[in-house]
Amino acid sequence: MPENDKQSLSMVTCTAPVNIAVIKYWGKRDEDLILPINSSLSVTLHQDQLKTTTTVACSRNFQQDRIWLNGKEEDISNPRLQSCLQEIRRFSRKRRNTGDSTSDVSGVSHKVHICSVNNFPTAAGLASSASGYACLVYTLSQLFGVESEQLSAVARQGSGSACRSLYGGFVQWKLGEQLDGKDSLAEQVESESYWPELRVLTLVVSAEQKSVGSTSGMHASVETSQLLKYRADVVVPSRMEEMIRVIRERDFPAFGELTMKDSNQFHAICLDTYPPIFYLNNTSHRIISLVHRYNQYYGETRVAYTFDAGPNAVIYTLQDHLSEFVQVVRHFFPPEVSGEEFVKGLPVCSADLSEELKRDINMEPTPKGIRYIISTKEQDIIVVVINYNIMPL
Amino acid sequence: MPENDKQSLSMVTCTAPVNIAVIKYWGKRDEDLILPINSSLSVTLHQDQLKTTTTVACSRNFQQDRIWLNGKEEDISNPRLQSCLQEIRRFSRKRRNTGDSTSDVSGVSHKVHICSVNNFPTAAGLASSASGYACLVYTLSQLFGVESEQLSAVARQGSGSACRSLYGGFVQWKLGEQLDGKDSLAEQVESESYWPELRVLTLVVSAEQKSVGSTSGMHASVETSQLLKYRADVVVPSRMEEMIRVIRERDFPAFGELTMKDSNQFHAICLDTYPPIFYLNNTSHRIISLVHRYNQYYGETRVAYTFDAGPNAVIYTLQDHLSEFVQVVRHFFPPEVSGEEFVKGLPVCSADLSEELKRDINMEPTPKGIRYIISTKEQDIIVVVINYNIMPL
Repeated sequence: MPENDKQSLSMVTCTAPVNIAVIKYWGKRDEDLILPINSSLSVTLHQDQLKTTTTVACSRNFQQDRIWLNGKEEDISNPRLQSCLQEIRRFSRKRRNTGDSTSDVSGVSHKVHICSVNNFPTAAGLASSASGYACLVYTLSQLFGVESEQLSAVARQGSGSACRSLYGGFVQWKLGEQLDGKDSLAEQVESESYWPELRVLTLVVSAEQKSVGSTSGMHASVETSQLLKYRADVVVPSRMEEMIRVIRERDFPAFGELTMKDSNQFHAICLDTYPPIFYLNNTSHRIISLVHRYNQYYGETRVAYTFDAGPNAVIYTLQDHLSEFVQVVRHFFPPEVSGEEFVKGLPVCSADLSEELKRDINMEPTPKGIRYIISTKEQDIIVVVINYNIMPL
Repeated sequence: MPENDKQSLSMVTCTAPVNIAVIKYWGKRDEDLILPINSSLSVTLHQDQLKTTTTVACSRNFQQDRIWLNGKEEDISNPRLQSCLQEIRRFSRKRRNTGDSTSDVSGVSHKVHICSVNNFPTAAGLASSASGYACLVYTLSQLFGVESEQLSAVARQGSGSACRSLYGGFVQWKLGEQLDGKDSLAEQVESESYWPELRVLTLVVSAEQKSVGSTSGMHASVETSQLLKYRADVVVPSRMEEMIRVIRERDFPAFGELTMKDSNQFHAICLDTYPPIFYLNNTSHRIISLVHRYNQYYGETRVAYTFDAGPNAVIYTLQDHLSEFVQVVRHFFPPEVSGEEFVKGLPVCSADLSEELKRDINMEPTPKGIRYIISTKEQDIIVVVINYNIMPL
């Protein structure tokens, strides 16, 4: 962008994926830098079904930084947004001052307008802060010429789990040891093509109550849960090692069991918080029962659940078992809407259930307990970029 | 009973109270002897509202030991029943052989018929095994002449928490160290008259699903929960000390807060069990929210909840706050049945709620979520005895 041209506008659009943790992040040791009390590990999901798209424009004519989320202007003074903006601008200036940049970074002194939208409804209850901050930080870095190895620490300061959305496939966020958080970074464990049979279903549950936000929830847990420190210091380190091993071995039963155990332990910590936090409701409990009964019927872990800070289940399974399990869900949670509206995203073949399986699971159906399913897979690429430089007429 | 009289019948009837733990027992280190992995502490409730009544008859004419629970004959071969019968008979013979008994213990070689009934419906979901085994063991001891200091270890082998129902007031069950469990016994912390203002409400919740039994539940937790060992070894010992201190100081806010925290931690351990165990349902969650919001309104802990292996809440409060809190429950859980049918047991005065309180609590009412309330208090005396010796005509 020519620095002397008052009419010019630079604009970059990127998209970023959602990630779902299988070893959960819950608790900060530093609230400002967003440094966690334990490492965590997640699977990055495909963007066709779940993504954030962010456009950042920058112009000398803009009077102030502004942001619109899903079409509605939000307060730019949010401290986490400010952290990300300041850090990216700082890196950009540093790069220009050291002269190692060939890109045009003059826009760094200009104000930005940010528009961010999700392709999934907020009502889906999926944490959008991870994809949101990953996308924001990556888009700003494209606009201002900041190197990608610096982004993990910046995204982390927007929302801890956002650093994991900067990579595809299987991603760990390492706890780190340094006080300034420079080593608390995300890194890829295995790439997006490592386990192509893995499938992911999001079961969107009909929720009655609004949950406690994850920021205030994990703060309360750190302050009051006597079990959390033991989880962070003793349980998680060995689970991280085991999770990385079972992913490398593509051992689904072990992956599934550990994923379920860690989800349950995270919710146990929420209950051990004072006052206690409940993210799971009766429908979540029934989904958990259904998964265990289904696995028990086959004598192996074919399906695994994990729950974040809300009642919706994310289900991991392998391609071979997908269509039958979706049919099981449809049978035990008879939907309000018909076929295609119930299962969104990647198509799922229909399947017949044996009477024996239905009898063995032996649960009362819960009509309308699940609003719809989003069918997707892991392995998405990191971030797609579209670059505009609009010159004045 | 004259030993040579074939027609004679000895019969004893006793009643025993229910106890509700405030530091929870969950997990055994020895399944046969029923030795716990942590100490626990409970409040014994008044028998007018909640008790077991057991009659044991013994006669030379009886062909075999038999038992009827709430009018229905049950299998006497139940290993825990057998443990209690064998232990009491062993103590009785030992006493006779050492000649230190003045009572007539000849009946020890005869078979017994046992009838046990509860004055509260099984549907109330209150654990009846504590009052049931305490009553059985005490009644047998009266019949066979066994000293009361030996009963704690016998009752414990029927149901762990039964040892605590042998005493009134505030009772701790000490973990013990010995392999044979001889030092794993209940003892009174404070007597039944120590804290007369304390009141107890049981909120009987409408449950849809049957829960996992506590015996198999705690077994699963010991096998699978990584957090349980830390709770038992590190958290509970300091909580036992603190609980005894706050009871001695009659410090209700501290007693209530610790009671709630320990209930929550017990349910957290259930969730950390694999597969997870859920005893709390949505109504339980709402009762928990209501209690915290009520306390928050007054800026102090006036009411505390605790939940055992089921969805029913037991509420501790002081006499001064009882009627208002019952009215709060009635407002936010509009009952299906009218006034007196809804609150059973000790009478509760009516109270008016301020609009400010209702507004501040800010919860949607849940009609019919609570079926009824049993109003009672702590401090009951240990066991009432009626003794019959029926001589032949």
